[in-house]
Amino acid sequence: MTKSSAVNAREAAEPRSTAGGGLLVRGETLTIQTKDRVELTDVTDRVSGLVRDSAVREGLVSLWSMHTTCAVFINESQKALHADIKRLLEEMVEREADWMHNDPDHSDCDRLNADAHLRAMLLGHSLTLQISSGALVLGQWQRVLVAELDGPRSRTLRAQIMGIGD
Amino acid sequence: MTKSSAVNAREAAEPRSTAGGGLLVRGETLTIQTKDRVELTDVTDRVSGLVRDSAVREGLVSLWSMHTTCAVFINESQKALHADIKRLLEEMVEREADWMHNDPDHSDCDRLNADAHLRAMLLGHSLTLQISSGALVLGQWQRVLVAELDGPRSRTLRAQIMGIGD
Amino acid sequence: MTKSSAVNAREAAEPRSTAGGGLLVRGETLTIQTKDRVELTDVTDRVSGLVRDSAVREGLVSLWSMHTTCAVFINESQKALHADIKRLLEEMVEREADWMHNDPDHSDCDRLNADAHLRAMLLGHSLTLQISSGALVLGQWQRVLVAELDGPRSRTLRAQIMGIGD
Repeated sequence: MTKSSAVNAREAAEPRSTAGGGLLVRGETLTIQTKDRVELTDVTDRVSGLVRDSAVREGLVSLWSMHTTCAVFINESQKALHADIKRLLEEMVEREADWMHNDPDHSDCDRLNADAHLRAMLLGHSLTLQISSGALVLGQWQRVLVAELDGPRSRTLRAQIMGIGD
Repeated sequence: MTKSSAVNAREAAEPRSTAGGGLLVRGETLTIQTKDRVELTDVTDRVSGLVRDSAVREGLVSLWSMHTTCAVFINESQKALHADIKRLLEEMVEREADWMHNDPDHSDCDRLNADAHLRAMLLGHSLTLQISSGALVLGQWQRVLVAELDGPRSRTLRAQIMGIGD
Repeated sequence: MTKSSAVNAREAAEPRSTAGGGLLVRGETLTIQTKDRVELTDVTDRVSGLVRDSAVREGLVSLWSMHTTCAVFINESQKALHADIKRLLEEMVEREADWMHNDPDHSDCDRLNADAHLRAMLLGHSLTLQISSGALVLGQWQRVLVAELDGPRSRTLRAQIMGIGD
């Protein structure tokens, strides 16, 4: 999907849409190989491609991170803003605080990744997006971002695309 | 929808509901003109009206903010609490910190609105709500709130209403 | 659902699934009696049971907290991590700050629970999860957690299960 196909002020003024028919459900997976401990990846084009290929014309798509330490959220895709997002996550949830999840007396987790669990909780692990006229509904600057919070790792996202087919 | 039509403890004890049929999908838009930079608007009655008029009896409704700096979330609609919400957002994400998104050396954004991007990320840009017996499912004190975080502006929300029709 | 039935790397490599048919919508309620003011409860097995019993094979399930001060989110179910989550919530939103919602000059709420409203807002009041092959789609360590933030109380969650039936 190009930015120009996103719903915008002009489209908002168009008549309401109503559609009826049989239900189509399509399951897909997306994988990402991350390179850093904390890393943001823009998957908008990949999710848009799955929606376009699904033959679902009007409906919803759920995008789900299969990991506790990997989040999915909406924001602008800009390098400077992504640096600010990482800074805020570090300020809100310190990596080096004496978290119990990192304490071998209380936890058998050897990744010492309490910060990653807590940061993912604040961002959220899933999005449920809209599909209209066979395309993802997004605002002009909105992009679907995946937050790796305990990488580098291979990550899996599942997409459930559901609605009225072509 | 009035508060009395929300699902409550009494209804929770009622038998389970099961319904089957053809799928209906209805797309709608809501616009809001905000007056302040940071402002909370209760859109519950407008969303309930869209659901009631949609002819969807059992299903889901996705409410999506078309903007990176405008959020949608659930809470009580009370003036004092809304002041607390704004205070917390200001404390968690300072407006005047030296965010890279506001730095002309790193960003071409002239709105200096990094705080708005970061605050919206914490609140979330969408809700997926339930529809039962043709009405929005909400708890007694739950209201659907829109957070303007970089106003005043005209804002658009899209509603995708999906389920079994009348 | 056992952990082994969750979607994992192996399943991610399987062919795409596509299913079509009539729409089934099932409404259910879950109740929880909490014992502490702030308490996390793992409801994964109960939600999985509702999905299994619903006869929905491919679709979505919305899980909705009917309360402003009770949240639903995803994380690992580990005692040490849950202590860290409670600590972070206390650090991010102080209970004893002079919130207006707790001030009788500005609010008629006698529960003095502004912190609970604000903490729930950060965690979120709902999840929309995927159903595939009749089971909840979750990563290996992902569990569905309910956060009581102003207990002890009796809490109600509503599940809307929607998709293609058996």
